[in-house]
Amino acid sequence: SINSERLLGRILELGEIGRDDDGRLTRLAASDTEKLGRDKFVSWIEQAGLGVAVDRIGNIFGIWRPAAVSDEAPLMLGSHIDTVINAGIYDGCYGVLSGLEVIETLVAAGFQPSRPIVVAAFTNEEGVRYAPDMMGSLVYAGGLDVDAAHATVGTDGTKLGEELRRIGYDGEHQPGFIRPHAYIELHIEQGPVLEREGIQIGAVENLQGISWQRVTISGDANHAGTTPISMRRDAGHAAALVITFLRERARNSKTPTVATVGCMSFEPNAINVIPSRATFTVDLRDPDEDRLKQEEAALEAYLAQLAKEEDVSFEVERLARFQPVAFDGKIIELIEKAAAGRGHTVRRMTSGAGHDAQMIARIAPSAMIFVPSLGGISHNPREKTQDEDLVAGANMLLDVVKQITGG
Amino acid sequence: SINSERLLGRILELGEIGRDDDGRLTRLAASDTEKLGRDKFVSWIEQAGLGVAVDRIGNIFGIWRPAAVSDEAPLMLGSHIDTVINAGIYDGCYGVLSGLEVIETLVAAGFQPSRPIVVAAFTNEEGVRYAPDMMGSLVYAGGLDVDAAHATVGTDGTKLGEELRRIGYDGEHQPGFIRPHAYIELHIEQGPVLEREGIQIGAVENLQGISWQRVTISGDANHAGTTPISMRRDAGHAAALVITFLRERARNSKTPTVATVGCMSFEPNAINVIPSRATFTVDLRDPDEDRLKQEEAALEAYLAQLAKEEDVSFEVERLARFQPVAFDGKIIELIEKAAAGRGHTVRRMTSGAGHDAQMIARIAPSAMIFVPSLGGISHNPREKTQDEDLVAGANMLLDVVKQITGG
Ligand SMILES: NC(=O)NCCC(=O)O
Ligand SMILES: NC(=O)NCCC(=O)O
Repeated sequence: SINSERLLGRILELGEIGRDDDGRLTRLAASDTEKLGRDKFVSWIEQAGLGVAVDRIGNIFGIWRPAAVSDEAPLMLGSHIDTVINAGIYDGCYGVLSGLEVIETLVAAGFQPSRPIVVAAFTNEEGVRYAPDMMGSLVYAGGLDVDAAHATVGTDGTKLGEELRRIGYDGEHQPGFIRPHAYIELHIEQGPVLEREGIQIGAVENLQGISWQRVTISGDANHAGTTPISMRRDAGHAAALVITFLRERARNSKTPTVATVGCMSFEPNAINVIPSRATFTVDLRDPDEDRLKQEEAALEAYLAQLAKEEDVSFEVERLARFQPVAFDGKIIELIEKAAAGRGHTVRRMTSGAGHDAQMIARIAPSAMIFVPSLGGISHNPREKTQDEDLVAGANMLLDVVKQITGG
Repeated sequence: SINSERLLGRILELGEIGRDDDGRLTRLAASDTEKLGRDKFVSWIEQAGLGVAVDRIGNIFGIWRPAAVSDEAPLMLGSHIDTVINAGIYDGCYGVLSGLEVIETLVAAGFQPSRPIVVAAFTNEEGVRYAPDMMGSLVYAGGLDVDAAHATVGTDGTKLGEELRRIGYDGEHQPGFIRPHAYIELHIEQGPVLEREGIQIGAVENLQGISWQRVTISGDANHAGTTPISMRRDAGHAAALVITFLRERARNSKTPTVATVGCMSFEPNAINVIPSRATFTVDLRDPDEDRLKQEEAALEAYLAQLAKEEDVSFEVERLARFQPVAFDGKIIELIEKAAAGRGHTVRRMTSGAGHDAQMIARIAPSAMIFVPSLGGISHNPREKTQDEDLVAGANMLLDVVKQITGG
């Protein structure tokens, strides 16, 4: 079994890096605070006696490559250590630190794997500063050119490539330089299903499609006191109509479709000026690709209708678009067997969140293990998974790794 | 008649001060760019041979006090030179520069007024950086303590008093130090009425009530992909519902009530995080005080309903609250007579915008003259009044001033 004290201690320690004076944890991709988190992870890799490698998109790898099997394709474990704004401490970090923990445990036990084992921390999984999300693993899997990724402009106007250089994590390796035999990602569920059903382990069999768009609605600034309602071309009001449209649609649908407007800004953003412009993001998700397309089409049609009814114009920019992904059946079965072996309840499930595993699935058989999130809360400082569940998940990962590399 | 070339030239010249690299005019109260505008106005006052005085809230006065009448209460003209964000060049500046122009014209003509004549530029009329609007004239009229006004925190976190000190416009005079005999403000209409009816001059008889509030709705941040719609406490969605509620109410009402949400911000403002907080402003106006109270009560009730239905909480902060104001009947008649004398069409009307005249009306008989705004556009770089209308309005002001100070 893994060293639970070490694992839980490291989760807490990493969770303190990037906490501001108000106690808010924010470790955005390629930021100064994320550099400190990266440095800490690298120091733990080195402490464990593993090799360190960084690729051009800033993905960090801790590599255990025993001489006897050095030519075999490695088993890869991993996740990410960047966070959203005002984040919890488990999202991503739990999977990365558990991957490292599993390797350290196997090394210490004198385990002789049939192939190398690698733990990865992928760059910019959250997509909050730079879109799309899962960018490091997407580039790694060949789904996005590394130079295009470097040129991505963030919400703060910076370029990802320049920021990686600035924090010293623009590595030498070509993304994809290690072609994994398989990939396994351990993660908190971030949703309410496991807790609600009283189940300890999720064997993730698929992951819903993600559509991210930025919508800009343009109307006309005018005086809040003198402009009759009938003469207004109010971009802020039009944006509000889009939010309520999306919500009504999702609420009335019998499918698991979700729609979220997370970012919003008005121009000129003055109390007595009718907004001339509203810019906002739309996050649409559905496990079914056809339905996701329908939702995108419904939004497009609604914007066109709004343009007429509210006398505004609009522009749409695509920030991310990923189809639903099915994970590898054999690994899913190994996860279920490992759960049975440890006496845990387990269910197959769909991931509501995006994960690096969905990108690596393009180049290697992949799957994920979920543990329960209290109250289904994530992307929130109150994100929490019980210690016993964290330890159970890491031991599950250990067992699956042993199965795959056992001989 | 006034020197139209000088007046129109100065309006253009002042209109260039505070223009950024993109050509956007923004001269927020007590900012660096507004300091430049103030300096320019003071230089013109001095050029005209008038006395300059600045009071503790930064109001600037150009004073013509002929020795023979120096003990009489002055007639005051004026408006403001601060602007909104991405503003037009006429709002406020037209009235200030016309007041100066009228005095210069009378001085040059050897006119001997029966009382001093003063032109004022009041601080922070727009209320965009610091609320409430019309702050300089409100303080001047004794409606707000000068120290409280100094302590006002702006949208950028600054304090007005510190900013006035920084730009050198924290004057020595006590606000109210000149008690006016009467006050007249010339202004562009900023609305569509005069143009639509083909009328040249508005004799403003009243001004609608203004209610400004800042509403903060708090919900709960959670993951955009994993959180079922039914479990969301989405502050952004609740804010959108408030916007559409206010719009529907104003649209369906048979009264001239207007409601505007001009400022909006989401927290944490991340693409895949359900907003935990939405902060926005509500600007409500109505010429009838009872109706304005009804609108405020309707908003309050709706917020309470929303708190239950959407499982959010809310806080409301009052930023400004002014009752409707009726102007002085005698001055309104003088304005109508002056229009007739110059052969202009004229109508009595209500001001949709707030103006310094509504504050000075607390301490002296006051009224306003309006000239048409093309397309009813204001608080917008396309704000425009024809030169001939600008000149006609300034000559109207000249005539009314002559009537009042003619002996
Ligand atoms: N796991 C996770 O929160 N990923 C971020 C990408 C997304 O799903 O929005
Ligand atoms: N005249 C004018 O635009 N005043 C600003 C205050 C307001 O009416 O919002």
